[in-house]
Amino acid sequence: MFETRIADVATAVSARLDAALEPMAGQIGAAMRHATDGGKRLRAFLVVEGAGLHGVDPAPALDAAAAIEAMHAYSLVHDDLPCMDDDDLRRGQPTVHVKWDEATAVLVGDALQTLAFDLLAHANLPADRVVTLTASMARAAGGLGMVQGQAMDIAAETAETPLTLLQITELQAKKTGALIEWSAQSGPIMAGADPAAMGHYARALGLAFQIADDILDIEGDEARTGKRLRKDDEAGKATFVSLLGLDGAKAEAKRLVTEACDALAPYGDAAESLRDAARFVIARQS
Amino acid sequence: MFETRIADVATAVSARLDAALEPMAGQIGAAMRHATDGGKRLRAFLVVEGAGLHGVDPAPALDAAAAIEAMHAYSLVHDDLPCMDDDDLRRGQPTVHVKWDEATAVLVGDALQTLAFDLLAHANLPADRVVTLTASMARAAGGLGMVQGQAMDIAAETAETPLTLLQITELQAKKTGALIEWSAQSGPIMAGADPAAMGHYARALGLAFQIADDILDIEGDEARTGKRLRKDDEAGKATFVSLLGLDGAKAEAKRLVTEACDALAPYGDAAESLRDAARFVIARQS
Repeated sequence: MFETRIADVATAVSARLDAALEPMAGQIGAAMRHATDGGKRLRAFLVVEGAGLHGVDPAPALDAAAAIEAMHAYSLVHDDLPCMDDDDLRRGQPTVHVKWDEATAVLVGDALQTLAFDLLAHANLPADRVVTLTASMARAAGGLGMVQGQAMDIAAETAETPLTLLQITELQAKKTGALIEWSAQSGPIMAGADPAAMGHYARALGLAFQIADDILDIEGDEARTGKRLRKDDEAGKATFVSLLGLDGAKAEAKRLVTEACDALAPYGDAAESLRDAARFVIARQS
Repeated sequence: MFETRIADVATAVSARLDAALEPMAGQIGAAMRHATDGGKRLRAFLVVEGAGLHGVDPAPALDAAAAIEAMHAYSLVHDDLPCMDDDDLRRGQPTVHVKWDEATAVLVGDALQTLAFDLLAHANLPADRVVTLTASMARAAGGLGMVQGQAMDIAAETAETPLTLLQITELQAKKTGALIEWSAQSGPIMAGADPAAMGHYARALGLAFQIADDILDIEGDEARTGKRLRKDDEAGKATFVSLLGLDGAKAEAKRLVTEACDALAPYGDAAESLRDAARFVIARQS
């Protein structure tokens, strides 16, 4: 059931992104389509499921889902640049700067970030809720959120001492956690409801997601993940696995999934697909 | 009088940006401050003067002015990257990737774009006007606006035939014109008034500004402009000067300034400082 639901969301959000990108011509347009193609669409799923739980109309929920996927795609395109993580493979395809060039990758990331705010600004919702969504997305993505997390990650590569568990948890909360939290909270925000329970769920889920990523980096298969693996280990970077051990990391991820599921208690059985999503993030092979 | 007014706006908008950047710590914070320091603050001036003409409160006008300067600063940091225009000097200072590194420059530009939307989302205005400002800024900056203009500019560098006058006018309208138009229209938008006259003014002003830039690239002094000059000429790029000749370009810039001033007729004498701004853009030495 979860697999069907996330596949349906992926189809719908891809169609929404394609419609938004349809007027974008030339190489930039083609590269923007390439950058937004594929992926698990976990963030979109959190938006759409959270919106459904709170009775939000499907159309604005899909706009918000497309917005967060555009924001996520921008961050991947820029993170993959040679001056950042220097990755040549993403979602099983060559990265934007490999398929085209670095200038195109910089511009595509820039335009995808703008598109995220564009999609939110055109969502058919009361204006005050659009403003709250926009303000919270800016806070999640900006210099005190995702960008700060990426800066901490890059600084860690040349630091003399590896990061501690507390530092790596803070880094993760900003680098990948902030957008996941926004995704889960956008449903209640669109409905004018209290986003606290969804926020608690998302913080536990986001951390479990990152721990699972670190485990996949050790145990995963490049053909399945569609990206280069074992780079952190080779670079001697601290990860949840290097700090907790493989068994310790798996136990912590499992504990966090239970915490995430429990945080959804106020929603009862209606939130079961969100609990499935939490279980999925630690069971996934890609 | 114009010089005093734009200096006052520059002081106020710098203080607003410093306040917004105050929580940003570390190297990214320092580099964001570096990137937003200095400049003519012409876009901020257009926002503040346009807002004043329409009776908008000074505080939200300053938020919008700081937002457009953050957006402009992001575009400069990314345009200066080695994979783009490869510039080492900006506003008389080393560019961000020279003073720090490329990864920092990519992240600083990214975070400054986010900051622009953050500042708008927190402006103390009716929510529907914040949404209109956000939607129009996204349209001006994104893949159908500024980013498309920059992509056209980069494509022109390797094209076999130089751009025609029509093509270069379209490129300019997107690359630099779109943010200038947003700046001038934001005042009436914040007041819920018709932005048409300010839009007409800004389109003529923006084109005059770019022609003046091309003239400065030939006749200017690097010590005064604080950036490298004569790069277009050396690269054999088409500019308004190469297409119209130096005298033809000067005559066209003058004609456009008259058109810009005339477009402000509905505002009468109250718009005199905006007319001064139009005269300034073709008289400036930097």
